[in-house]
Amino acid sequence: MFQDFKLIPGRPAYLQVRDYLRLLINRGWLTADQKLPSTRELGNVWGVSRNTVIAAYQELADEGLIYSIPGQGSYASPAERADTIVANMDWNKRMSEKAQTAERMDVMKHGVRGERGMISFMSIAPDESLFPLQYVKQALVDRIAAEGEIMLNYGYAQGYQPLIEELKRYMESKGIDMKGKDMLITNGFTEGLDIVLSAMDKRHGRVICENPTHHSAIKLFKMHGLEIEGIAMEHDGMNMEQVTNALEERSYDLAYLIPSYQNPTGVVMSPSKRMTAIRLFAKHGIPVIEDGFSEELRYSGAHVAPLIACAGGANHVIYIGSFSKILFPGMRIGWIIADEQLISYLVSMKRARTIHTSTLDQAVLYQYLHNGHFESYLKKAKSVYKRKYEWAVQCCEQHIPLRRLWGDGGLHLFIELDPSVNVEDVLMKCREQGVLFTPGSRFYTDGGGANTFRIGFSRVSEPDIERGTRIIGNVIKQIIQGG
Amino acid sequence: MFQDFKLIPGRPAYLQVRDYLRLLINRGWLTADQKLPSTRELGNVWGVSRNTVIAAYQELADEGLIYSIPGQGSYASPAERADTIVANMDWNKRMSEKAQTAERMDVMKHGVRGERGMISFMSIAPDESLFPLQYVKQALVDRIAAEGEIMLNYGYAQGYQPLIEELKRYMESKGIDMKGKDMLITNGFTEGLDIVLSAMDKRHGRVICENPTHHSAIKLFKMHGLEIEGIAMEHDGMNMEQVTNALEERSYDLAYLIPSYQNPTGVVMSPSKRMTAIRLFAKHGIPVIEDGFSEELRYSGAHVAPLIACAGGANHVIYIGSFSKILFPGMRIGWIIADEQLISYLVSMKRARTIHTSTLDQAVLYQYLHNGHFESYLKKAKSVYKRKYEWAVQCCEQHIPLRRLWGDGGLHLFIELDPSVNVEDVLMKCREQGVLFTPGSRFYTDGGGANTFRIGFSRVSEPDIERGTRIIGNVIKQIIQGG
Repeated sequence: MFQDFKLIPGRPAYLQVRDYLRLLINRGWLTADQKLPSTRELGNVWGVSRNTVIAAYQELADEGLIYSIPGQGSYASPAERADTIVANMDWNKRMSEKAQTAERMDVMKHGVRGERGMISFMSIAPDESLFPLQYVKQALVDRIAAEGEIMLNYGYAQGYQPLIEELKRYMESKGIDMKGKDMLITNGFTEGLDIVLSAMDKRHGRVICENPTHHSAIKLFKMHGLEIEGIAMEHDGMNMEQVTNALEERSYDLAYLIPSYQNPTGVVMSPSKRMTAIRLFAKHGIPVIEDGFSEELRYSGAHVAPLIACAGGANHVIYIGSFSKILFPGMRIGWIIADEQLISYLVSMKRARTIHTSTLDQAVLYQYLHNGHFESYLKKAKSVYKRKYEWAVQCCEQHIPLRRLWGDGGLHLFIELDPSVNVEDVLMKCREQGVLFTPGSRFYTDGGGANTFRIGFSRVSEPDIERGTRIIGNVIKQIIQGG
Repeated sequence: MFQDFKLIPGRPAYLQVRDYLRLLINRGWLTADQKLPSTRELGNVWGVSRNTVIAAYQELADEGLIYSIPGQGSYASPAERADTIVANMDWNKRMSEKAQTAERMDVMKHGVRGERGMISFMSIAPDESLFPLQYVKQALVDRIAAEGEIMLNYGYAQGYQPLIEELKRYMESKGIDMKGKDMLITNGFTEGLDIVLSAMDKRHGRVICENPTHHSAIKLFKMHGLEIEGIAMEHDGMNMEQVTNALEERSYDLAYLIPSYQNPTGVVMSPSKRMTAIRLFAKHGIPVIEDGFSEELRYSGAHVAPLIACAGGANHVIYIGSFSKILFPGMRIGWIIADEQLISYLVSMKRARTIHTSTLDQAVLYQYLHNGHFESYLKKAKSVYKRKYEWAVQCCEQHIPLRRLWGDGGLHLFIELDPSVNVEDVLMKCREQGVLFTPGSRFYTDGGGANTFRIGFSRVSEPDIERGTRIIGNVIKQIIQGG
């Protein structure tokens, strides 16, 4: 058993010796009162200095794992073992409905998975090669210089104050009236939505939203036991007549909307529909959760205000924002803007659930924004994604026999095929040829969308966009001809 | 309105000019088609170069907020305003029971608050002046060099693989048998507990735990609708006879224990009680949540294995660990070790709730641990806290007329006074003299503990520990004499 030890570079040798011996003792391979090799002997066998072994033995003695008898050597301490305890719980049978729903709808676990070398249109994460890494490092160094160690200790549930102020300014600059409103920093959009759903009383047990819509939101609605009413999408947003009828027929606890580059359709809701929608929800007393998804990606020249800005001083819109579709999603930072009374409850929920969002991340993001590097990055990223978007549109139109192409920009397109085509069949055949995409059905609230799919192009090169869409198109043509 | 502009240092001037003008437009102070000052004029008034103003105007024109007429100047664009929308929701009336409980039990919001210059024994956060900041910086730089931009993109719900492996090794070295077990990285202990509670089916709606116990755990139990059975604490852990009786009388969904430096009593559960407890819970088929709180702080020489190590191959213990009581709590990293079947569900829950824990934080922590700086830091921190602990014990015994002093080490002591003394009265008088501590009642599951309080000494200097305990002692003596 002493032969398997191997030194790895980059970690002090005495710690590696200690850890390995500790493992031998804890696993019972060194039994009670068994003698250890001498420090000289072990040093020779393991190719480390005798002092290294001495330091390791000292650590183990301090921990009470070994003891030494002067003039004789070191021995493993006796320890009570638990071999007699038997518990073999079947955890599957102890899971709540919430956990079962989360597991069943976990598409990362159950969905098709890409392999190296495949062309995958599944992701709508930003392209990390655009990330300005040197400025992130710079931001950390600057902030440490300004704040010191306190930055690494506990912070406040609401968030890191300088970041809150920076983001409030940023959101005000989008036209949001912050009077009577406040902000909570969260671990990304997803935590924001989950906290809001947990905090809201479910009187009617029903939510109204776009159909199709964000899969993670559908999953959270179901985990929170909500029934979902999906409203058909049109080129400029939801069908407002359907909304009007739905609100007259039944009561809803809340509405959920993605007004910019909607996921999955890529539709930007028109200014007039924005105004109509928030008027309508205000009239019916229904809170609106606005998903700021891809808000930052809107191409210049088209100034369309977020719903919460359109709502002016009205207090029924809850905006949840995030930079995850453009900047550093690995950092997991999002923010909620809402009526200050509501934020006060959400702060308590946040404290009870995760205490607060990482101060390190918040401090780095704050400094990065403050240093003014975001603007130039955003410009560059937008122009890259715009070029890719235009290229992807061109490729899809050329290669795929589609019925309708959805998507005004952002990081993805949505494709509607002839209703006779089943996209699951297309995916299976494409996968054999090394191409993956996301079937649209998982975004539908009503089991529809079997003839639709989403193409995420943000992390696919332009030649691969061409190759991939050509393969998809050929597969569909074969299916149509064969069918 | 153009007079209020002020340049702040450290951010590009053209962005500040842009942001300010955008605010004026969005707030309606610049109305539709109103003419803006010329770039030369505004540059003069605001003390910036004309090129700065030109760049800002260009940005605003790109966003569609202003337009220019060649040869005439720039004008604010017209925008639809929402002054007609009225919504004035009473959010208090729309909160779930969960949110109301979180708010009601939010002691950070409703409790006594310290002011600058006061001696506060309320915190049990680590002393940030001990944090090895240069190694954190180093760890980030090392990891960025090794991983590049990918580190800032989306990661995996289970956690950052190198960190998982590092922590598994670390926990194995504490004697945990990882066979059949797995790990999930969370945003600190608190998220870990909340996810476990959300995932577990509540058949009996009841939890058994130590009394007194961690306030945040009590809060989460109540938020999850659980009834709490508290078992009296003794100097070596829970009263086992009470546990035995409780388990025979009623059924429980889970047990919650803090075996090392229990919060708030500071008791270290004895090895024999550890074995008895896990045997008993195994026999009754009750899952045990082990709170690894302060596990790392145990002073050397006393090797006591965590419950999950004592349990060997049995699969009913769920260990939730964190370095937050010793290292960088601002980073918010914790981990759950449990049966791999359970972890699989928890991973799906984690993905549904927050996608994953910050990769930046996980990568930095991994590299810091891997570089081997944790060991030397831990030694230093332990010796500092041990000295403070001994000093605090001495001061409390000398100055405070106590009935019993609890606490074997860690970052806090727990004091039991004569039952006739009401600690809330003591706190009110101490506060007037600039000393704060945490009343014990908030840790009790049954409304008890009115004559107890917790003294956190980790962030209080030794002279202030002396001064503070003397003041507390004097106040108590006055109350006893007056009463």
